[in-house]
Amino acid sequence: MHVRENAAISGIITPADIQDILKKELAAVETSISENFQSSVAMIPLISEYLVSGGGKRLRPMLLLASARLCGFTGKENDKDIIHSTIMEYIHAASLLHDDVVDTADLRRGVSSANAKWGNQYPVLVGDFLFAKTFSLMAKHSPPGVIEIVSEATRLLAEGQILELVHSADIEMTEEKYIELIFSKTGALITACCQTGGIIGGADEQRLNALSEYGKNIGIAFQLVDDILDFTSDEKTLGKPAGHDFIEGHVTLPVIAAFAKGSKQEKKFLMESIKDEALAVKNISQVMEIVKKHDGIEYATTMAESYSEKAVASLDVFPAGQFLDALKGLAEYIVTRKT
Amino acid sequence: MHVRENAAISGIITPADIQDILKKELAAVETSISENFQSSVAMIPLISEYLVSGGGKRLRPMLLLASARLCGFTGKENDKDIIHSTIMEYIHAASLLHDDVVDTADLRRGVSSANAKWGNQYPVLVGDFLFAKTFSLMAKHSPPGVIEIVSEATRLLAEGQILELVHSADIEMTEEKYIELIFSKTGALITACCQTGGIIGGADEQRLNALSEYGKNIGIAFQLVDDILDFTSDEKTLGKPAGHDFIEGHVTLPVIAAFAKGSKQEKKFLMESIKDEALAVKNISQVMEIVKKHDGIEYATTMAESYSEKAVASLDVFPAGQFLDALKGLAEYIVTRKT
Repeated sequence: MHVRENAAISGIITPADIQDILKKELAAVETSISENFQSSVAMIPLISEYLVSGGGKRLRPMLLLASARLCGFTGKENDKDIIHSTIMEYIHAASLLHDDVVDTADLRRGVSSANAKWGNQYPVLVGDFLFAKTFSLMAKHSPPGVIEIVSEATRLLAEGQILELVHSADIEMTEEKYIELIFSKTGALITACCQTGGIIGGADEQRLNALSEYGKNIGIAFQLVDDILDFTSDEKTLGKPAGHDFIEGHVTLPVIAAFAKGSKQEKKFLMESIKDEALAVKNISQVMEIVKKHDGIEYATTMAESYSEKAVASLDVFPAGQFLDALKGLAEYIVTRKT
Repeated sequence: MHVRENAAISGIITPADIQDILKKELAAVETSISENFQSSVAMIPLISEYLVSGGGKRLRPMLLLASARLCGFTGKENDKDIIHSTIMEYIHAASLLHDDVVDTADLRRGVSSANAKWGNQYPVLVGDFLFAKTFSLMAKHSPPGVIEIVSEATRLLAEGQILELVHSADIEMTEEKYIELIFSKTGALITACCQTGGIIGGADEQRLNALSEYGKNIGIAFQLVDDILDFTSDEKTLGKPAGHDFIEGHVTLPVIAAFAKGSKQEKKFLMESIKDEALAVKNISQVMEIVKKHDGIEYATTMAESYSEKAVASLDVFPAGQFLDALKGLAEYIVTRKT
């Protein structure tokens, strides 16, 4: 297999390699995604299609498919890996739809967000449709334990989004609270993908715990990098203007770190800027200067790398093989990606 | 039991009688409702409390509790009746939260709606939290078959709300489409309450089908009466201004019936009025005149009574008893209620 050879040459397996290894399965996931949101109400597939075909990375299906195979699933037993990948993408899509309404975002991955295109009404209800659809699918297809895991992850997801709203413009938020928030908002569903893959693969408790640890740590690392990219990337690469999170009032680790080390005057400047969107827009260059001056980016990057390393370390219980390499590669990719 | 005697005297059992018969159980439902939305994120119980304690009729718990007991459940076996009543109220509350965002309603049951009080953001996310919480509870507590039923009902609920949006101001909507819409929006969850009660009570297929038919028909009747009350009641009784549905662009059976019989000029008048909210506000008295002139209210009332009678007839498979009387009484109440 040329893929494994490439990985061996570079020493690391990339998402492109994984897309190659899991080509057939990821194609089946795409088909399943399109088939399962059909409805006699035409707006439902229209908005769903717009969202789930909107250039997502399919990180969650990759994690689920690879976790299942790491635990011995071959894909010949049944298609539970495909249907559960669909479920995870629907939950992710539903949460993006609702998050856009909450954030009143104009752009999502560089194109108009669903709420900018259709207002608040359809995105709220199509999100609900997708949530309900996932539970219908799970009621039909899930092995024991999966509904518990996914519903708890969905609850945490909502709690994390609420927590984010509660701590909007709260520049004194602690690092601990921030980690709790990003685990809920992003890590919980990613963890559920790894655990569900493990269950489909028939993993024992030790392996399930390992996958859970892996998922939790890469989930946190993933969101940390998202929050870093908001400061380091540009509109063309990211699909949204740089500094957008700060302007929206989201307090992230680079800012928390810089705030901790800032002078009294800098603290005051950051605090006033994040509380007033118009002021934040005006001051964003200076805000970025302060974050850079106090090594906010470096600090957050070190943290992200540390979570990624913890994720890889937790996979020690698994024997060598291409799917172990795949999960390790995804942990690496998550902290080196530029978009 | 004085309740049965009262019912015997009046010939019909009322919701007040049922609240008396099921006093202990309904109190347990209230406790369960408050306990299960606790969260470390303070906004969640705050908004949930506001909504689920906001003077709802607890129709869904009553139906579920009575259906279970009609099928032989005594309440000594377990507390599945209480927890599933909680689940139904959470789904109902979540859908109201999202519906208010969609409708941008200012009033709900005569008090400020959640979105008027907290904006769109919290109601969207607390609704999601409640949806997720219900599926967590079901994963732990539901007997086989219940998650399928409830997730399908939740999906239909979202589809019904979307359908309503699609047919907003569509005065040419057919009666058939309208019935489909109100079944999805209101009837599906009410049906699920009756079916779930039946499953908890160990009903066989014939009895489950009977409860399903009953639920479907009273669900449609319930929404028909809601739509009638919008024309016949007043702001003080209803908690929202009369004609509110028409002003919001909701096409309901009284209007559909009047439109069918209206003159060319009246048709044009109704069509133009419903398409423009400001015009609808200005014209609402004349709109009501036209609806009354063409017996729109009478037509819809006759339909509601017919659905209520079908509901009662479907209960023929059950032996006489106070819970049969309770369900028959609820079918009667639904079409005679004034709020």
